[in-house]
Amino acid sequence: MANLHDIAYDMEQAIRNSDEYQTLTKAYKEVNEDDIAKKMFDNFRQLQLTLQKKQMTGQQITEEEAQKAQQQVQLIQQHEVISNLMAAEQKMSMLISDLNKIITKPLEDIYGKSGDAS
Amino acid sequence: MANLHDIAYDMEQAIRNSDEYQTLTKAYKEVNEDDIAKKMFDNFRQLQLTLQKKQMTGQQITEEEAQKAQQQVQLIQQHEVISNLMAAEQKMSMLISDLNKIITKPLEDIYGKSGDAS
Ligand SMILES: [Ca+2]
Ligand SMILES: [Ca+2]
Repeated sequence: MANLHDIAYDMEQAIRNSDEYQTLTKAYKEVNEDDIAKKMFDNFRQLQLTLQKKQMTGQQITEEEAQKAQQQVQLIQQHEVISNLMAAEQKMSMLISDLNKIITKPLEDIYGKSGDAS
Repeated sequence: MANLHDIAYDMEQAIRNSDEYQTLTKAYKEVNEDDIAKKMFDNFRQLQLTLQKKQMTGQQITEEEAQKAQQQVQLIQQHEVISNLMAAEQKMSMLISDLNKIITKPLEDIYGKSGDAS
């Protein structure tokens, strides 16, 4: 059995070589080379983060904020390089989640699905 | 280069075989076989979770709760099987954190250290 850290480095390299990572890298580059797309995408991410932070700290999200987020999603989906990036991010996120499910199985066997010891 | 999922299964197996995991499994079993230790540990975990939830939702932690947590830590540290378990958990958590640092490097290269795209 190879050393755990060696396996981690193999996994790092295999992630870099994966279709998912290659596609994501390309999609991210395309958004960053398109000034308008980049600005739209940055604004959208910023709003998402603000709303997430509010939710996590139990603050109320106003109807105005919810509407603004909805409008930005619609605007963004019409922009091809951005919708490509969001699709690529989702595929990458599914891959990472798959890998995590496998890797965290030993700890689940001890603690159960929640990951805590109670 | 081996398939990503194959590498993940190799990593799962290597985690199971690691000293850290073997020690954690043994320490967890010993606490669970000791009724008093188990009850103390469960109470402690429960209190920790309650306080964490409060912090994450921006609620105030009362002085009474902070004192209670402090007392439980002191009580628990005197119980050998529990302090063994907590030490084993910390070593396991450091190992997982090391592996995660390696595996998440490709995504950091795209998004930067924070993991978001902004
Ligand atoms: Ca592939
Ligand atoms: Ca070892």
